[in-house]
Amino acid sequence: MRIGIIGSGKVGRALGAWMTRVGYEVAFTSRTQAHALEAARDAGPGATALEPRALVEACDLLLLTLPFTQIVPTLEPLRETLAGKILVDVTNPLTDNHRALSMGHTTSGAEEISRRFPEASVVKAFNAVFAEVYAAQRSRLEGRPVTMFYAGDEDAAKQRVREILVRLGFDAVDAGPLMNSRYLEPLSLLNIHLGRVLGWGANIGFSLLREPQ
Amino acid sequence: MRIGIIGSGKVGRALGAWMTRVGYEVAFTSRTQAHALEAARDAGPGATALEPRALVEACDLLLLTLPFTQIVPTLEPLRETLAGKILVDVTNPLTDNHRALSMGHTTSGAEEISRRFPEASVVKAFNAVFAEVYAAQRSRLEGRPVTMFYAGDEDAAKQRVREILVRLGFDAVDAGPLMNSRYLEPLSLLNIHLGRVLGWGANIGFSLLREPQ
Repeated sequence: MRIGIIGSGKVGRALGAWMTRVGYEVAFTSRTQAHALEAARDAGPGATALEPRALVEACDLLLLTLPFTQIVPTLEPLRETLAGKILVDVTNPLTDNHRALSMGHTTSGAEEISRRFPEASVVKAFNAVFAEVYAAQRSRLEGRPVTMFYAGDEDAAKQRVREILVRLGFDAVDAGPLMNSRYLEPLSLLNIHLGRVLGWGANIGFSLLREPQ
Repeated sequence: MRIGIIGSGKVGRALGAWMTRVGYEVAFTSRTQAHALEAARDAGPGATALEPRALVEACDLLLLTLPFTQIVPTLEPLRETLAGKILVDVTNPLTDNHRALSMGHTTSGAEEISRRFPEASVVKAFNAVFAEVYAAQRSRLEGRPVTMFYAGDEDAAKQRVREILVRLGFDAVDAGPLMNSRYLEPLSLLNIHLGRVLGWGANIGFSLLREPQ
């Protein structure tokens, strides 16, 4: 499985480098090819930089790590290449000040992407952990694996995402259909508020504690 | 501090009994006095049953453990007794099938209660854990204290709620202003979906993992 990283900013570079390190073939793309090349170089052997169209054609799983508002303009010109691809939506539809969601309750960013690009299978994941944690390649905090919830409507696509999460060492928990992104995107805002406003910092993560009934 | 439990159903009885056991004076009320008496008897010494008006007058902290839709009809006739009281909103504005929120994103149940009863100080808490966990008087799962997020606009009121959470053994985490109930109510829906739909059962809870920067 070759993983394409669409958006070579802080989150994309950190996740791409980490996925490269655990053995995935990773390709980066960016608005400027220079950024993508830099990301690939930093990620080391196993990583390449590609133009957007070539990247989508070469990869069957694509991580959306660009700002939410750039997803449609970026993917729209590539629509005919998206059939059968897995889009992993790492984004949150944030307001400009990153303090609230621009949509929610009756929809979610992930559902809107899915509605806009029905050719692809959208899986929500990686959206409620800070880039700093990914950059440190840490899936454990306080000795416990951080729970990474994922949501989607197609089991095969979810399974692929789960495999990546598990290989990175996360506690991968299926959070149900894509519609449940309506609960996972607010979780990210809770994370942002705790970390950036209430002073807990970036090294935080949620864990789902569970015991048999 | 005397705690009033408004709504002697599954959640109210479980929390009231637990708070009684850890040493609080607790009073129950219910739509039918028989329910309240039963709840008080089950909770043991330290617990009493009161008519709604007498309860609000006698207690400075009131747990709202009735269904969200019954809050306004229950509290409206008692409005003049609510000044200066702390209303702990344990509820979630659920749809009839308990599978979604009836409001969210630009508001939350807790904010609506606060808007409706500005005489009182509303604190959101206890809303994302199953009644079964409260009934078992457990604040730890998998050996870790469950994180209980609370949100509110008045520090003194939040501090009172925090004290209760800590005395029960929870990991009490300030989640910011009452507005952040927009993130805590979706967290409850995630909890419900995981427990009731995806098969994890009731013995689940979220923990905030955190390490210094």
